[in-house]
Amino acid sequence: MNNNTNTAVTRNIRVQGDRLWQSLMEMAQIGGTDKGGCNRQTFTDVDKQGRDLFIRWCLDAGCTMSIDTVGNIFARRPGIDNSLPPVLTGSHLDTQPTGGKFDGVYGVLAGLEVIRSLNDANLTTLAPLEIAVWTNEEGSRFSPAMLGSGVWCGEFDLDYAYSRQDKEGLSFFDELQRIGYLGSEPATHRPLKAAFEVHIEQGPILEDEGLQIGVLTGVQGMHWYDLTLFGQPCHAGPTPMEMRKDPFMALPDILTRLYRLADQYAPWGRVTFGDISANPGSRNTVPESITLAVDLRHPDQSVLDAMDQTFRSIVESATAEKQLDYKIDDEWRSPAVAFNTECIEAVRGAVCALGYSNKEMVSGAGHDSVYISRVAPTSMIFIPCEGGLSHNEAENASTEDLEAGANVLLHAMLKMANQA
Amino acid sequence: MNNNTNTAVTRNIRVQGDRLWQSLMEMAQIGGTDKGGCNRQTFTDVDKQGRDLFIRWCLDAGCTMSIDTVGNIFARRPGIDNSLPPVLTGSHLDTQPTGGKFDGVYGVLAGLEVIRSLNDANLTTLAPLEIAVWTNEEGSRFSPAMLGSGVWCGEFDLDYAYSRQDKEGLSFFDELQRIGYLGSEPATHRPLKAAFEVHIEQGPILEDEGLQIGVLTGVQGMHWYDLTLFGQPCHAGPTPMEMRKDPFMALPDILTRLYRLADQYAPWGRVTFGDISANPGSRNTVPESITLAVDLRHPDQSVLDAMDQTFRSIVESATAEKQLDYKIDDEWRSPAVAFNTECIEAVRGAVCALGYSNKEMVSGAGHDSVYISRVAPTSMIFIPCEGGLSHNEAENASTEDLEAGANVLLHAMLKMANQA
Repeated sequence: MNNNTNTAVTRNIRVQGDRLWQSLMEMAQIGGTDKGGCNRQTFTDVDKQGRDLFIRWCLDAGCTMSIDTVGNIFARRPGIDNSLPPVLTGSHLDTQPTGGKFDGVYGVLAGLEVIRSLNDANLTTLAPLEIAVWTNEEGSRFSPAMLGSGVWCGEFDLDYAYSRQDKEGLSFFDELQRIGYLGSEPATHRPLKAAFEVHIEQGPILEDEGLQIGVLTGVQGMHWYDLTLFGQPCHAGPTPMEMRKDPFMALPDILTRLYRLADQYAPWGRVTFGDISANPGSRNTVPESITLAVDLRHPDQSVLDAMDQTFRSIVESATAEKQLDYKIDDEWRSPAVAFNTECIEAVRGAVCALGYSNKEMVSGAGHDSVYISRVAPTSMIFIPCEGGLSHNEAENASTEDLEAGANVLLHAMLKMANQA
Repeated sequence: MNNNTNTAVTRNIRVQGDRLWQSLMEMAQIGGTDKGGCNRQTFTDVDKQGRDLFIRWCLDAGCTMSIDTVGNIFARRPGIDNSLPPVLTGSHLDTQPTGGKFDGVYGVLAGLEVIRSLNDANLTTLAPLEIAVWTNEEGSRFSPAMLGSGVWCGEFDLDYAYSRQDKEGLSFFDELQRIGYLGSEPATHRPLKAAFEVHIEQGPILEDEGLQIGVLTGVQGMHWYDLTLFGQPCHAGPTPMEMRKDPFMALPDILTRLYRLADQYAPWGRVTFGDISANPGSRNTVPESITLAVDLRHPDQSVLDAMDQTFRSIVESATAEKQLDYKIDDEWRSPAVAFNTECIEAVRGAVCALGYSNKEMVSGAGHDSVYISRVAPTSMIFIPCEGGLSHNEAENASTEDLEAGANVLLHAMLKMANQA
């Protein structure tokens, strides 16, 4: 571990794509499903097995391990000056119930591959490196999502996390303790030189444009609403159309104008209606109300705020025209994130040096890095995934792209860790 | 009972509104709810009590009773020539779980009031008169609705009716037997001179126009569909709007054009969307599909058939434009009914003679008379109900209107029963 000043070695170092692939496939067997996906939810027996395997690999790679009070795992590779804040990478090992082999896991094992490759090259960085495994990113067993990184970054209280229950009423705390991952490190953030996360895109853009790497400049802000339109229930037969107060009558205008709103802020404005229901939902009765789940996204918070205002005025005018009442429940807000310029530059520089085709983009989905970015310089790297599919057992990515993403991660981390 | 030829007596005879009201209120106590409504569902203990009370009243009025194998009750008042087919009136005594005091019950007790009034006037009709209580009109305990009249008219097999189960798995047959109303008369139709049914409107038209009587010329035909629009599920964040296959994108066009279709066939064309759901219904996922319950109605079957065709072509073009797949499931069809001209004339003549404000209309809802009209000359009479409310504990009607409707029924029945 004495070649850190050898710039030729540093410049030419690459990860081993085959080894990375092999680790991914071995991890995927833990909680592997018949359809080739993964069901490895937070604090299940298979989550424990996955964590155990990761720790064994890290110990083999010479890391020192620590676990915090929310179950986040940190694997540390010493640097030359261990008083410097570390450069961290990481993601999550938990999956959706019908999840895939790459979402999250790739970010963790790419970090491991970075450390293995540095070991192979006998390179030590100036600052130490760390790999984080964030607890319960998916939120499919314990709501909300990104709970481990959220506690660590101060978004949630530890007690709040502990009190979360799964559908069977089992608590986060009891299950954390049961699998033996209640650590002693405080689950609070500490100084980081930089943080990176490499992840599959979970969308179709890179594949569609034939590109290998997405250089992420931020994460879309999201506003979630439940919009309820109130009418007057009446029998479908006897009531003349013009005497009805039918909440469905306002829906075309609202949907059309909201899709137009997304167009207005193209290409990053997003409007999604994921759910809808009618009350009482009787086939031959004009509903008393219909409730629509509305999801607005944009990477620029000021644009998202403008979309929020326009949404409200669209609903106001569309319901007034049909003489309906309405309410808008704000369900969740995740502000837009702009990643750290220096971290973005480190990624961009690595991509250029490595010669990968690429584009700048923002993440449409939430990631642990959203929270990490509040307490440390952060950015992310995307690679394509097959058909844009994720949260799906058919999730797939090519060895080449997985290797490319890990190489970008490696060189971005080296760049930040070797800065004076 | 020998004054049937006394035309002055016949012309001047009227029902007693107070007595009718009192009977309605007494019947309403059986299964009466705290909110002033009624919960007297088919073959419950309170249904038995209601039937028992009705039979006692009919026996007191000199009727002979019979019960058929599906539990329909017939009260017969002899005529001068009992070889003639009877003039029948009737409706149902069962209610919705949160039903009112008038829906159905009024039609039965108005028939009783007709017979009581003829008794008071010592008038005998040429043909006999009958009151029918049809079993399970509401269909809220045993599906489908109008089961008793449906079996009697040959729409359903008796065994089909017997095998129907309520939500607890109790069978129609067992419950019919349990309350002691499994009669011996065959549940099959026999010749009727005419059949009438008086009913609250269950809609707002008469009240809105300040009219007392609706002279019904028919019943709207109804087509029920489940329309499913298929998209491609994808994450709300990462997927650009233009790459989505979002079933919600076809919805505004479909809703707007279907409402326009109702307008095109105003005032009797009706389009109702009573229910809608999204699959999987996850807030941050473009749905794989959405399913919309569509209810089309028109009293002219040829118009309804044209609406059916237009509906299909609207869906075809709206989905093609958004590159979506779809399927249309035909859930139910009830053909439009045109009532018997002679029966309508008898009602119209009675309304004119009695001087009630009135209009011709069609029923938007199904009634036992829909089935009866297939096997006998039939028509219906409507009276206003407060706020158009029905299937509701607040259901209400005025004594004056209830009396007016019963007077129209009386004179329409007299007209048909005294024809040579």
